[in-house]
Amino acid sequence: MLLFCPAMFQRLTDYIRARVEADDASLSFVLSHFKPAKARRGELLLNFGDVCRYCYFTNKGAIQIFYLDKNGDEATRDFVFEGTWVTELSSFIHQQPAKESFKALEPLELLSINRESFFKLVESVPQFSHIYQRNLETSYTRSVDRIGSFVSMDAEQRVRWLYENQPHLLTRLSNKVVASYLGISPETLSRMKTRL
Amino acid sequence: MLLFCPAMFQRLTDYIRARVEADDASLSFVLSHFKPAKARRGELLLNFGDVCRYCYFTNKGAIQIFYLDKNGDEATRDFVFEGTWVTELSSFIHQQPAKESFKALEPLELLSINRESFFKLVESVPQFSHIYQRNLETSYTRSVDRIGSFVSMDAEQRVRWLYENQPHLLTRLSNKVVASYLGISPETLSRMKTRL
Repeated sequence: MLLFCPAMFQRLTDYIRARVEADDASLSFVLSHFKPAKARRGELLLNFGDVCRYCYFTNKGAIQIFYLDKNGDEATRDFVFEGTWVTELSSFIHQQPAKESFKALEPLELLSINRESFFKLVESVPQFSHIYQRNLETSYTRSVDRIGSFVSMDAEQRVRWLYENQPHLLTRLSNKVVASYLGISPETLSRMKTRL
Repeated sequence: MLLFCPAMFQRLTDYIRARVEADDASLSFVLSHFKPAKARRGELLLNFGDVCRYCYFTNKGAIQIFYLDKNGDEATRDFVFEGTWVTELSSFIHQQPAKESFKALEPLELLSINRESFFKLVESVPQFSHIYQRNLETSYTRSVDRIGSFVSMDAEQRVRWLYENQPHLLTRLSNKVVASYLGISPETLSRMKTRL
């Protein structure tokens, strides 16, 4: 699954430079801990029950983060697209079995970093620590909003909220995975899309 | 609402010492930015629409974090108890209107810190930054689990999960607020409690 191509570091370089002041030496030091990786559409990057050994920066593609419900159906917790990060944080930190799975919804180009390298950078490179902290804040506040959508909205309000706040999900992804993200059936989503 | 009593800093002192190495000078510097506060049962610490100006460390009591749904009913996002923190992070960081409200379910004893002091400590005291980062990790992974419970469990599974993972909620809090945390009616919760 590993490939090497220097151009694959361009997006992460731009991402870091847009967020912190980093000289070339610090930047090279950070980048040297990442390895390019690819995945085919449908491939599992992480299977629940396995330990999540990597944090990924997404260069290209879309990832579904999901659980299996009691009927064995995929229940989507979140989606990740290019320019953002994905890891099962609890499993990655504590090296315990993951509770969720990651699947490539599109062909993926990634950069991976293992736990040891990741937390070495957090401890030793203030700019990397800053980026990690900002990401935790953003991930937490996004997840708070998502819990809010479940406790305070009905299905129709959640579909409306998606139209207003994440319309790209509705055009880029299949009805089936978007419905599983909203906790409704694909048929209900189709009906509501027609109405809206 | 402000009171002063040095004993009110004991729990936060213990909390910090249990997590990081801190000499007396650093510890005093950190504590000097907190102010004791109290709230009566039923009092709102934060009303949605207002800017969240403080982060609170809870010395004593229980707090409900909730939204109002379209019927004007309280939809509970989370509970906070003694020994933990509460703020509406997005509002606190960006000083924008809060999306949720905080209510004292029991008489509260708190320590409050404002945004400027909080982030000054994060920037200047490595131990405080470390505690903030650990808290973000824990808050995020807890919220991920909670989203998982909404997308992959039905109501009965959520009640069972609560019995197994947070049984203190069922004994300490009213059926009404616990039901609003689970996204079910108080009647459904009562029926399930009898069955389980």
